[in-house]
Amino acid sequence: MDQININTIPEPILKLVQEFSKLPGIGKKTAQRLTYYLIRTNFDDALSLSESIMAVKNNIILCSECSNITQIDPCNICNDPIRDKTRICVVEEALDVLALEKTGIYKGLYHVLHGVISPVNGIGPEDIKINKLIERVNTLGFREIILAMNPNLEGEATSMYINQIFKNKEIIITRPARGIAIGSDIEYADEITLGQAISGRQKF
Amino acid sequence: MDQININTIPEPILKLVQEFSKLPGIGKKTAQRLTYYLIRTNFDDALSLSESIMAVKNNIILCSECSNITQIDPCNICNDPIRDKTRICVVEEALDVLALEKTGIYKGLYHVLHGVISPVNGIGPEDIKINKLIERVNTLGFREIILAMNPNLEGEATSMYINQIFKNKEIIITRPARGIAIGSDIEYADEITLGQAISGRQKF
Repeated sequence: MDQININTIPEPILKLVQEFSKLPGIGKKTAQRLTYYLIRTNFDDALSLSESIMAVKNNIILCSECSNITQIDPCNICNDPIRDKTRICVVEEALDVLALEKTGIYKGLYHVLHGVISPVNGIGPEDIKINKLIERVNTLGFREIILAMNPNLEGEATSMYINQIFKNKEIIITRPARGIAIGSDIEYADEITLGQAISGRQKF
Repeated sequence: MDQININTIPEPILKLVQEFSKLPGIGKKTAQRLTYYLIRTNFDDALSLSESIMAVKNNIILCSECSNITQIDPCNICNDPIRDKTRICVVEEALDVLALEKTGIYKGLYHVLHGVISPVNGIGPEDIKINKLIERVNTLGFREIILAMNPNLEGEATSMYINQIFKNKEIIITRPARGIAIGSDIEYADEITLGQAISGRQKF
Protein backbone atom coordinates (compact mmCIF):
# COMPACT_ATOMS: atom_id res chain seq x y z
CA MET A 1 0.00 0.00 0.00
CA ASP A 2 2.69 2.50 0.93
CA GLN A 3 5.13 1.10 -1.62
CA ILE A 4 3.37 2.87 -4.45
CA ASN A 5 5.58 5.08 -6.56
CA ILE A 6 4.36 8.47 -5.47
CA ASN A 7 5.55 10.02 -8.73
CA THR A 8 2.74 8.40 -10.63
CA ILE A 9 0.06 10.26 -8.67
CA PRO A 10 -0.19 14.03 -9.17
CA GLU A 11 0.19 15.99 -5.95
CA PRO A 12 -3.24 17.73 -6.05
CA ILE A 13 -4.86 14.29 -6.13
CA LEU A 14 -2.84 13.02 -3.16
CA LYS A 15 -3.74 16.19 -1.29
CA LEU A 16 -7.48 15.91 -1.97
CA VAL A 17 -7.48 12.21 -1.02
CA GLN A 18 -5.79 13.21 2.22
CA GLU A 19 -8.32 15.99 2.88
CA PHE A 20 -11.30 13.71 2.23
CA SER A 21 -9.74 11.06 4.51
CA LYS A 22 -9.91 13.52 7.40
CA LEU A 23 -13.72 13.50 7.25
CA PRO A 24 -15.51 11.17 9.66
CA GLY A 25 -16.37 7.76 8.22
CA ILE A 26 -14.34 8.35 5.05
CA GLY A 27 -11.51 5.85 4.68
CA LYS A 28 -8.70 6.00 2.17
CA LYS A 29 -10.54 3.98 -0.49
CA THR A 30 -13.65 6.16 -0.28
CA ALA A 31 -11.49 9.29 -0.34
CA GLN A 32 -9.88 8.04 -3.55
CA ARG A 33 -13.24 7.29 -5.10
CA LEU A 34 -14.59 10.75 -4.22
CA THR A 35 -11.44 12.38 -5.59
CA TYR A 36 -11.59 10.50 -8.88
CA TYR A 37 -15.29 11.25 -9.12
CA LEU A 38 -14.58 14.96 -8.80
CA ILE A 39 -11.96 14.71 -11.53
CA ARG A 40 -14.57 13.26 -13.87
CA THR A 41 -17.43 15.54 -12.87
CA ASN A 42 -17.97 18.89 -14.55
CA PHE A 43 -16.19 22.00 -13.32
CA ASP A 44 -19.33 23.74 -12.02
CA ASP A 45 -20.32 20.83 -9.76
CA ALA A 46 -16.88 20.79 -8.16
CA LEU A 47 -16.93 24.57 -7.79
CA SER A 48 -20.35 24.39 -6.19
CA LEU A 49 -19.14 21.85 -3.61
CA SER A 50 -16.00 23.86 -2.90
CA GLU A 51 -17.93 27.09 -2.46
CA SER A 52 -20.65 25.49 -0.35
CA ILE A 53 -18.03 24.34 2.14
CA MET A 54 -16.76 27.88 2.56
CA ALA A 55 -20.29 29.33 2.62
CA VAL A 56 -20.98 27.15 5.64
CA LYS A 57 -17.74 28.16 7.34
CA ASN A 58 -18.32 31.85 6.61
CA ASN A 59 -22.02 32.10 7.43
CA ILE A 60 -22.81 29.61 10.13
CA ILE A 61 -22.45 30.66 13.77
CA LEU A 62 -23.58 29.27 17.11
CA CYS A 63 -26.73 30.76 18.59
CA SER A 64 -25.73 32.82 21.65
CA GLU A 65 -28.73 31.36 23.48
CA CYS A 66 -28.95 27.63 22.73
CA SER A 67 -25.60 27.08 20.92
CA ASN A 68 -27.41 25.50 17.99
CA ILE A 69 -25.93 26.32 14.60
CA THR A 70 -27.58 29.23 12.85
CA GLN A 71 -27.17 32.04 10.37
CA ILE A 72 -28.89 34.61 12.55
CA ASP A 73 -28.51 35.19 16.30
CA PRO A 74 -30.62 34.24 18.23
CA CYS A 75 -31.55 31.28 16.04
CA ASN A 76 -34.95 30.68 14.45
CA ILE A 77 -35.98 28.31 17.22
CA CYS A 78 -35.04 30.65 20.10
CA ASN A 79 -36.67 33.50 18.18
CA ASP A 80 -39.88 31.68 17.37
CA PRO A 81 -42.74 33.25 19.42
CA ILE A 82 -44.89 30.12 19.25
CA ARG A 83 -42.30 27.70 20.72
CA ASP A 84 -43.00 26.50 24.24
CA LYS A 85 -40.52 28.49 26.33
CA THR A 86 -41.15 26.46 29.50
CA ARG A 87 -39.26 23.39 28.24
CA ILE A 88 -35.65 22.93 27.27
CA CYS A 89 -34.24 19.84 25.59
CA VAL A 90 -30.52 19.25 26.14
CA VAL A 91 -28.73 17.44 23.28
CA GLU A 92 -25.14 16.53 22.47
CA GLU A 93 -24.86 18.05 19.03
CA ALA A 94 -26.67 20.14 16.44
CA LEU A 95 -27.57 17.06 14.39
CA ASP A 96 -29.70 15.88 17.30
CA VAL A 97 -31.78 19.07 17.07
CA LEU A 98 -32.37 18.25 13.43
CA ALA A 99 -33.45 14.70 14.27
CA LEU A 100 -35.84 15.89 17.00
CA GLU A 101 -37.28 18.65 14.83
CA LYS A 102 -38.02 16.08 12.15
CA THR A 103 -40.37 14.26 14.52
CA GLY A 104 -42.52 17.41 14.73
CA ILE A 105 -43.49 16.36 18.27
CA TYR A 106 -41.31 18.60 20.44
CA LYS A 107 -42.16 22.29 20.46
CA GLY A 108 -39.89 23.61 23.23
CA LEU A 109 -36.40 25.12 23.20
CA TYR A 110 -33.06 23.36 22.87
CA HIS A 111 -29.61 23.50 24.38
CA VAL A 112 -26.71 22.04 22.40
CA LEU A 113 -23.80 20.90 24.60
CA HIS A 114 -21.40 20.30 21.68
CA GLY A 115 -20.03 17.19 23.31
CA VAL A 116 -20.39 14.96 26.35
CA ILE A 117 -18.42 14.57 29.54
CA SER A 118 -15.75 11.98 28.82
CA PRO A 119 -12.94 11.62 31.35
CA VAL A 120 -11.23 9.07 29.05
CA ASN A 121 -10.91 11.71 26.36
CA GLY A 122 -10.12 14.45 28.86
CA ILE A 123 -13.45 16.22 28.33
CA GLY A 124 -14.88 17.70 31.53
CA PRO A 125 -18.06 19.73 32.20
CA GLU A 126 -16.16 22.97 31.55
CA ASP A 127 -15.30 21.82 27.99
CA ILE A 128 -18.91 21.59 26.89
CA LYS A 129 -21.72 24.14 27.15
CA ILE A 130 -22.95 23.14 30.61
CA ASN A 131 -22.23 26.47 32.33
CA LYS A 132 -24.32 28.21 29.70
CA LEU A 133 -27.10 25.69 30.38
CA ILE A 134 -26.98 26.42 34.14
CA GLU A 135 -27.11 30.14 33.39
CA ARG A 136 -30.13 29.74 31.09
CA VAL A 137 -32.00 27.52 33.51
CA ASN A 138 -31.35 29.92 36.40
CA THR A 139 -32.46 33.02 34.49
CA LEU A 140 -35.28 31.66 32.37
CA GLY A 141 -36.94 29.34 34.88
CA PHE A 142 -37.99 26.34 32.80
CA ARG A 143 -40.63 23.90 33.98
CA GLU A 144 -39.02 20.88 32.34
CA ILE A 145 -35.53 19.85 31.27
CA ILE A 146 -35.39 16.93 28.84
CA LEU A 147 -32.01 15.21 28.84
CA ALA A 148 -31.77 13.76 25.32
CA MET A 149 -28.18 12.54 25.32
CA ASN A 150 -27.24 9.39 23.44
CA PRO A 151 -27.94 6.24 25.48
CA ASN A 152 -24.31 5.24 26.01
CA LEU A 153 -21.81 5.48 28.87
CA GLU A 154 -20.77 9.07 28.22
CA GLY A 155 -24.30 10.25 27.47
CA GLU A 156 -25.52 8.68 30.72
CA ALA A 157 -22.69 10.24 32.71
CA THR A 158 -23.47 13.65 31.27
CA SER A 159 -27.19 13.22 32.02
CA MET A 160 -26.40 12.21 35.60
CA TYR A 161 -24.09 15.21 36.01
CA ILE A 162 -26.77 17.63 34.81
CA ASN A 163 -29.49 15.91 36.84
CA GLN A 164 -27.32 16.35 39.95
CA ILE A 165 -27.09 20.10 39.37
CA PHE A 166 -30.83 20.70 39.02
CA LYS A 167 -32.38 17.95 41.13
CA ASN A 168 -33.10 20.17 44.13
CA LYS A 169 -34.79 22.82 42.02
CA GLU A 170 -38.46 22.81 41.17
CA ILE A 171 -37.90 21.50 37.67
CA ILE A 172 -39.14 18.26 36.17
CA ILE A 173 -36.18 16.43 34.65
CA THR A 174 -37.07 13.84 32.02
CA ARG A 175 -35.43 11.84 29.29
CA PRO A 176 -36.79 10.20 26.09
CA ALA A 177 -38.34 6.76 26.66
CA ARG A 178 -36.10 3.78 26.06
CA GLY A 179 -37.64 0.78 24.43
CA ILE A 180 -38.01 -1.32 21.34
CA ALA A 181 -37.52 0.63 18.12
CA ILE A 182 -40.43 0.68 15.68
CA GLY A 183 -39.85 -1.84 12.89
CA SER A 184 -37.32 -3.84 14.89
CA ASP A 185 -37.63 -7.43 16.12
CA ILE A 186 -38.02 -8.21 19.82
CA GLU A 187 -36.04 -11.37 19.06
CA TYR A 188 -33.03 -9.28 18.04
CA ALA A 189 -33.31 -6.49 20.62
CA ASP A 190 -30.32 -6.33 22.98
CA GLU A 191 -30.92 -7.32 26.60
CA ILE A 192 -30.57 -3.84 28.07
CA THR A 193 -33.02 -2.27 25.62
CA LEU A 194 -35.50 -5.09 26.10
CA GLY A 195 -35.11 -4.90 29.88
CA GLN A 196 -35.80 -1.17 29.85
CA ALA A 197 -38.74 -1.69 27.50
CA ILE A 198 -40.33 -4.20 29.84
CA SER A 199 -39.72 -2.30 33.04
CA GLY A 200 -40.99 0.91 31.42
CA ARG A 201 -43.99 -0.79 29.79
CA GLN A 202 -46.86 1.50 28.84
CA LYS A 203 -50.62 1.09 29.03
CA PHE A 204 -52.06 -0.24 25.74
CA MET B 1 -38.53 13.34 6.66
CA ASP B 2 -39.71 16.07 4.31
CA GLN B 3 -42.09 17.51 6.89
CA ILE B 4 -39.23 19.26 8.67
CA ASN B 5 -39.65 22.99 9.08
CA ILE B 6 -37.09 24.23 6.60
CA ASN B 7 -36.79 27.52 8.49
CA THR B 8 -34.90 25.83 11.27
CA ILE B 9 -32.01 24.80 8.99
CA PRO B 10 -29.83 27.61 7.60
CA GLU B 11 -29.67 27.64 3.81
CA PRO B 12 -25.84 27.18 3.51
CA ILE B 13 -26.20 23.92 5.47
CA LEU B 14 -29.00 22.63 3.25
CA LYS B 15 -26.89 23.51 0.22
CA LEU B 16 -23.78 21.72 1.46
CA VAL B 17 -25.79 18.63 2.45
CA GLN B 18 -27.19 18.66 -1.08
CA GLU B 19 -23.73 19.01 -2.63
CA PHE B 20 -22.27 16.19 -0.54
CA SER B 21 -25.28 14.00 -1.44
CA LYS B 22 -24.29 14.24 -5.11
CA LEU B 23 -21.04 12.39 -4.43
CA PRO B 24 -21.06 8.64 -5.12
CA GLY B 25 -21.85 6.48 -2.09
CA ILE B 26 -22.82 9.47 0.04
CA GLY B 27 -26.44 9.31 1.17
CA LYS B 28 -28.40 12.06 2.88
CA LYS B 29 -27.45 10.98 6.42
CA THR B 30 -23.73 10.84 5.61
CA ALA B 31 -23.97 14.18 3.83
CA GLN B 32 -25.49 15.68 6.99
CA ARG B 33 -22.81 14.17 9.17
CA LEU B 34 -20.04 15.54 6.92
CA THR B 35 -21.67 18.96 6.86
CA TYR B 36 -22.02 19.15 10.63
CA TYR B 37 -18.46 17.90 11.00
CA LEU B 38 -17.24 20.75 8.81
CA ILE B 39 -19.19 23.23 10.92
CA ARG B 40 -17.36 22.01 14.01
CA THR B 41 -13.92 21.67 12.45
CA ASN B 42 -11.52 24.61 12.35
CA PHE B 43 -11.63 27.12 9.52
CA ASP B 44 -8.27 26.13 8.01
CA ASP B 45 -9.23 22.46 7.60
CA ALA B 46 -12.41 23.42 5.77
CA LEU B 47 -10.51 25.89 3.62
CA SER B 48 -7.93 23.24 2.83
CA LEU B 49 -10.63 20.81 1.65
CA SER B 50 -12.37 23.50 -0.37
CA GLU B 51 -9.13 24.60 -2.05
CA SER B 52 -7.96 21.03 -2.69
CA ILE B 53 -11.12 20.36 -4.66
CA MET B 54 -10.46 23.31 -6.91
CA ALA B 55 -6.73 22.50 -7.16
CA VAL B 56 -7.68 19.14 -8.61
CA LYS B 57 -10.15 20.67 -11.05
CA ASN B 58 -7.68 23.36 -12.13
CA ASN B 59 -4.52 21.27 -12.38
CA ILE B 60 -5.48 17.76 -13.39
CA ILE B 61 -5.71 16.91 -17.08
CA LEU B 62 -5.88 13.71 -19.09
CA CYS B 63 -2.63 12.46 -20.59
CA SER B 64 -2.81 12.91 -24.38
CA GLU B 65 -1.25 9.46 -24.74
CA CYS B 66 -2.87 7.08 -22.27
CA SER B 67 -5.77 9.26 -21.00
CA ASN B 68 -4.67 8.67 -17.42
CA ILE B 69 -5.09 11.67 -15.14
CA THR B 70 -1.97 13.76 -14.77
CA GLN B 71 -0.55 17.18 -14.06
CA ILE B 72 1.97 17.07 -16.91
CA ASP B 73 1.46 15.83 -20.46
CA PRO B 74 2.51 13.15 -21.31
CA CYS B 75 2.05 11.67 -17.86
CA ASN B 76 4.82 10.30 -15.63
CA ILE B 77 4.12 6.74 -16.70
CA CYS B 78 4.17 7.44 -20.45
CA ASN B 79 7.26 9.60 -19.92
CA ASP B 80 9.16 7.07 -17.79
CA PRO B 81 12.12 5.74 -19.85
CA ILE B 82 12.37 2.52 -17.84
CA ARG B 83 8.76 1.39 -18.36
CA ASP B 84 8.27 -1.55 -20.69
CA LYS B 85 6.92 0.07 -23.86
CA THR B 86 6.03 -3.24 -25.49
CA ARG B 87 3.01 -3.86 -23.24
CA ILE B 88 -0.18 -1.88 -22.78
CA CYS B 89 -2.74 -2.53 -20.10
CA VAL B 90 -6.28 -1.34 -20.89
CA VAL B 91 -8.36 -0.31 -17.87
CA GLU B 92 -11.78 1.24 -17.31
CA GLU B 93 -10.80 4.16 -15.14
CA ALA B 94 -7.87 6.00 -13.60
CA LEU B 95 -8.42 4.37 -10.20
CA ASP B 96 -7.59 1.02 -11.81
CA VAL B 97 -4.15 2.36 -12.80
CA LEU B 98 -3.60 3.29 -9.18
CA ALA B 99 -4.63 -0.19 -8.00
CA LEU B 100 -2.35 -1.91 -10.52
CA GLU B 101 0.59 0.40 -9.75
CA LYS B 102 0.23 -0.46 -6.08
CA THR B 103 0.98 -4.10 -6.85
CA GLY B 104 4.40 -3.08 -8.19
CA ILE B 105 4.22 -6.05 -10.60
CA TYR B 106 3.26 -4.42 -13.88
CA LYS B 107 5.89 -2.25 -15.56
CA GLY B 108 4.28 -1.54 -18.93
CA LEU B 109 2.10 1.30 -20.22
CA TYR B 110 -1.61 1.90 -19.64
CA HIS B 111 -4.64 3.00 -21.58
CA VAL B 112 -7.60 4.39 -19.66
CA LEU B 113 -10.93 3.97 -21.46
CA HIS B 114 -12.91 6.19 -19.06
CA GLY B 115 -15.87 3.88 -19.20
CA VAL B 116 -17.08 0.62 -20.69
CA ILE B 117 -19.36 -0.25 -23.57
CA SER B 118 -22.87 -0.40 -22.14
CA PRO B 119 -25.77 -0.49 -24.60
CA VAL B 120 -28.23 -0.31 -21.70
CA ASN B 121 -26.80 3.06 -20.69
CA GLY B 122 -26.36 4.16 -24.29
CA ILE B 123 -22.58 4.01 -24.14
CA GLY B 124 -21.01 2.78 -27.36
CA PRO B 125 -17.35 2.30 -28.38
CA GLU B 126 -17.20 5.86 -29.69
CA ASP B 127 -18.09 7.24 -26.23
CA ILE B 128 -15.00 5.80 -24.56
CA LYS B 129 -11.34 6.05 -25.57
CA ILE B 130 -11.25 3.01 -27.85
CA ASN B 131 -10.38 4.89 -31.04
CA LYS B 132 -7.38 6.37 -29.30
CA LEU B 133 -6.39 2.84 -28.22
CA ILE B 134 -6.59 1.56 -31.80
CA GLU B 135 -4.48 4.51 -32.93
CA ARG B 136 -1.82 3.84 -30.28
CA VAL B 137 -1.68 0.12 -30.97
CA ASN B 138 -1.37 0.71 -34.72
CA THR B 139 1.38 3.31 -34.40
CA LEU B 140 3.36 1.98 -31.45
CA GLY B 141 3.29 -1.75 -32.20
CA PHE B 142 2.88 -3.38 -28.78
CA ARG B 143 3.70 -7.02 -28.18
CA GLU B 144 0.99 -7.53 -25.58
CA ILE B 145 -2.36 -5.99 -24.74
CA ILE B 146 -3.69 -6.77 -21.28
CA LEU B 147 -7.45 -6.30 -21.02
CA ALA B 148 -7.94 -5.46 -17.33
CA MET B 149 -11.61 -4.52 -17.35
CA ASN B 150 -13.79 -5.35 -14.35
CA PRO B 151 -15.08 -8.93 -14.48
CA ASN B 152 -18.73 -8.09 -15.06
CA LEU B 153 -21.08 -8.05 -18.03
CA GLU B 154 -20.03 -4.68 -19.38
CA GLY B 155 -16.34 -5.25 -18.72
CA GLU B 156 -16.52 -8.58 -20.56
CA ALA B 157 -18.38 -7.04 -23.50
CA THR B 158 -15.76 -4.30 -23.77
CA SER B 159 -12.93 -6.86 -23.60
CA MET B 160 -14.56 -8.93 -26.33
CA TYR B 161 -15.03 -5.87 -28.50
CA ILE B 162 -11.35 -4.89 -28.18
CA ASN B 163 -10.20 -8.48 -28.65
CA GLN B 164 -12.20 -8.62 -31.88
CA ILE B 165 -10.40 -5.57 -33.25
CA PHE B 166 -6.88 -6.84 -32.62
CA LYS B 167 -7.23 -10.62 -32.83
CA ASN B 168 -5.86 -10.89 -36.38
CA LYS B 169 -2.79 -8.82 -35.56
CA GLU B 170 0.43 -10.26 -34.19
CA ILE B 171 -0.29 -9.14 -30.65
CA ILE B 172 -0.73 -11.34 -27.60
CA ILE B 173 -4.01 -10.42 -25.90
CA THR B 174 -4.24 -11.40 -22.24
CA ARG B 175 -6.34 -10.64 -19.20
CA PRO B 176 -5.64 -10.89 -15.44
CA ALA B 177 -6.17 -14.39 -14.01
CA ARG B 178 -9.55 -15.06 -12.43
CA GLY B 179 -9.57 -17.15 -9.32
CA ILE B 180 -9.99 -17.28 -5.61
CA ALA B 181 -8.99 -14.07 -3.85
CA ILE B 182 -6.19 -14.30 -1.29
CA GLY B 183 -7.63 -14.40 2.21
CA SER B 184 -11.06 -15.53 1.04
CA ASP B 185 -12.83 -18.82 1.77
CA ILE B 186 -13.39 -21.39 -0.96
CA GLU B 187 -16.59 -22.24 0.89
CA TYR B 188 -17.93 -18.74 0.25
CA ALA B 189 -16.58 -18.20 -3.27
CA ASP B 190 -19.31 -17.74 -5.87
CA GLU B 191 -19.78 -20.52 -8.41
CA ILE B 192 -18.46 -18.63 -11.42
CA THR B 193 -15.25 -17.55 -9.65
CA LEU B 194 -14.68 -21.03 -8.28
CA GLY B 195 -15.40 -22.57 -11.69
CA GLN B 196 -12.87 -20.26 -13.35
CA ALA B 197 -10.36 -20.95 -10.58
CA ILE B 198 -10.63 -24.70 -11.13
CA SER B 199 -10.55 -24.63 -14.91
CA GLY B 200 -7.62 -22.20 -14.82
CA ARG B 201 -5.73 -24.13 -12.12
CA GLN B 202 -2.02 -23.48 -11.93
CA LYS B 203 0.96 -25.78 -11.29
CA PHE B 204 1.87 -25.81 -7.59
